[in-house]
Amino acid sequence: MSRKIPDLYPVILAGGGGTRLWPLSRKKRPKQALALFNERTLFQNTLARLWGLVPPENVLVVTVEEQAPLLREQAPGLPAENVLAEPLPRGTAAAAGLAWLALQERGIHDATLVILPSDHYMANPTLFQNLMQAAYQVARQGFVVTLGITPNYPATGYGYIQMGELLGTFEGMPAYRVVRFKEKPDLETAKAMLARGDHVWNAGIFAWTAAVFWEEVRQHLPPLARALQTALEKGLTTREPRALRPLWESLPEETIDYGIMEKTRRAAVLPAPRELGWSDVGSWDAILDLLAREPNQAVVVGSTDQIVLDSQNLLVYLDDRPRVVAAIDADDLILVVTDDALLVCRRGKSQRVREVVRILKRQGKPWV
Amino acid sequence: MSRKIPDLYPVILAGGGGTRLWPLSRKKRPKQALALFNERTLFQNTLARLWGLVPPENVLVVTVEEQAPLLREQAPGLPAENVLAEPLPRGTAAAAGLAWLALQERGIHDATLVILPSDHYMANPTLFQNLMQAAYQVARQGFVVTLGITPNYPATGYGYIQMGELLGTFEGMPAYRVVRFKEKPDLETAKAMLARGDHVWNAGIFAWTAAVFWEEVRQHLPPLARALQTALEKGLTTREPRALRPLWESLPEETIDYGIMEKTRRAAVLPAPRELGWSDVGSWDAILDLLAREPNQAVVVGSTDQIVLDSQNLLVYLDDRPRVVAAIDADDLILVVTDDALLVCRRGKSQRVREVVRILKRQGKPWV
Repeated sequence: MSRKIPDLYPVILAGGGGTRLWPLSRKKRPKQALALFNERTLFQNTLARLWGLVPPENVLVVTVEEQAPLLREQAPGLPAENVLAEPLPRGTAAAAGLAWLALQERGIHDATLVILPSDHYMANPTLFQNLMQAAYQVARQGFVVTLGITPNYPATGYGYIQMGELLGTFEGMPAYRVVRFKEKPDLETAKAMLARGDHVWNAGIFAWTAAVFWEEVRQHLPPLARALQTALEKGLTTREPRALRPLWESLPEETIDYGIMEKTRRAAVLPAPRELGWSDVGSWDAILDLLAREPNQAVVVGSTDQIVLDSQNLLVYLDDRPRVVAAIDADDLILVVTDDALLVCRRGKSQRVREVVRILKRQGKPWV
Repeated sequence: MSRKIPDLYPVILAGGGGTRLWPLSRKKRPKQALALFNERTLFQNTLARLWGLVPPENVLVVTVEEQAPLLREQAPGLPAENVLAEPLPRGTAAAAGLAWLALQERGIHDATLVILPSDHYMANPTLFQNLMQAAYQVARQGFVVTLGITPNYPATGYGYIQMGELLGTFEGMPAYRVVRFKEKPDLETAKAMLARGDHVWNAGIFAWTAAVFWEEVRQHLPPLARALQTALEKGLTTREPRALRPLWESLPEETIDYGIMEKTRRAAVLPAPRELGWSDVGSWDAILDLLAREPNQAVVVGSTDQIVLDSQNLLVYLDDRPRVVAAIDADDLILVVTDDALLVCRRGKSQRVREVVRILKRQGKPWV
């Protein structure tokens, strides 16, 4: 499965701030720049997952201006100009548009793009490459492809995709027409969808040819189409993001999900088997799940030694200095210590970390 | 009530290691040397509680050799020779004997001694001095006096004292003959004792005249009597604890509670009103209770800032560096961070800290 695809162009979206992993993630140290699971950052793992699938010069990264230097540093194998700085943050649709523009200005017209978040986790990179091969083939047939994640619990934190008619089998994997996209459901609805078995999670991974993308943008996102058209006509390039800023200023904030996927008539979904081991690493709870090798385990990261008495489903994450960690009857807890902050949070409640960050921001405090 | 008592000699027992407040307390930083509630250490607060009650030169401190320099430093108002180093640790009975010996060698025979732990907390120092005045008077009548703490819950972690016949009222406070001492009870027994209303906690605070002490020791602790007698005969003094070591070697380990109080026929108890606000600061749970100004409060010590969401009965104690502390739905927890250790413990379970220290010791680890 190590066939390279010379005309596949991965577009890694790496502009996120990531307040959900506070206090580890900060404005200046976003989630994708964290090394949570090995010596590589989430962004570097995303790059590594593409090794052998495409030539390195095909990989594009879209980020905000402030993060571009850090990401270039973390990706020495990429040409520096492949790390694109957004003129202004205008959502994932505009970010994908910027990548499309970069290909146009390089004279690459017959390309297939795959949009990838920079901060997800996948346990099985080989299976990921198989899925990319399949997504490429579905996209070449003119579909707007989305990767679906086979759910293993009735999550209320993800959007769902309902699968319809079988389109065919690609690289041994079935692809379906999309019936509809559904926003984050309540628990009852999520349970019902899981029971039906024809729904998958929307992971924010999309594939399309440059031509199909352009058609979709012209049809569903006219302001973005106009901005891209004007840039091409005026010879403005992605190498000078500030020159593009006046065009971007008029763009409404728009995501790929709402702006394109929910409107297109040619959406296809490629359900990823559970063996992909996907996680969006979207909270400290997700990190505990990923780090625990056994059910109910206490996970201690960064300690010199640990004494765990009667404590289950506990995450202690030391980021400032190694310490001996002692836990006594401390079930269902998340505990993160950094140089300047300490978080203690009930397991299952770590999405509320955003509230903490919101309060700190509102108060003008420095720890965000 | 600020009458000074010129012949009252407080003996502060300050030799304890204090593993129960690990990781803050260590072998080299025992509990009494910790500044938990204000800028003074528990030992210094114990000294301060005696200001105005006795002349400073009356105050004796008994400790182990390694701690003597630290305690002398913390008590600049005391003559250095009043900090007595035990020849060997042989329990509180031998420590009291050492203080008695110090008075003998100074030619002070008509003394009343009051034995005080160095690491307790009292909210009301004025009431404490009243109690000391009363204890002095009861002791002068020939009794072996113990201070009882009026219980406010059915504690299973303290010994109890059953009060009998009223002996009289001293400084407005009643004193009773002791019916019996009872070891730490189970919960049912504790509840029954609380319901009867004639039981108080044993706080390890005792008073007696030097003469009564000597009689009791001769009667109930012959080995200690022999050691003290020999020291006097040979002219060995408390200034040279190593010279006393051969005498101490033969002593069995013995507490005042078991060695004297449970055997004497002239035990009296002076019940302290609840307003004394006594605590033995015997665990992190006790510290949370003492620091919380309102019921169910979250207490954060050492933070730069704190954001507490839906967290009750939480103690976060930062000893290494100030941090912002965020708590989310973290009820009933104790969390202590030092330079080299982190403790996370369910509230109500902090007595198990001793298990942690035991394990660390057994493994030969440095953090004890």
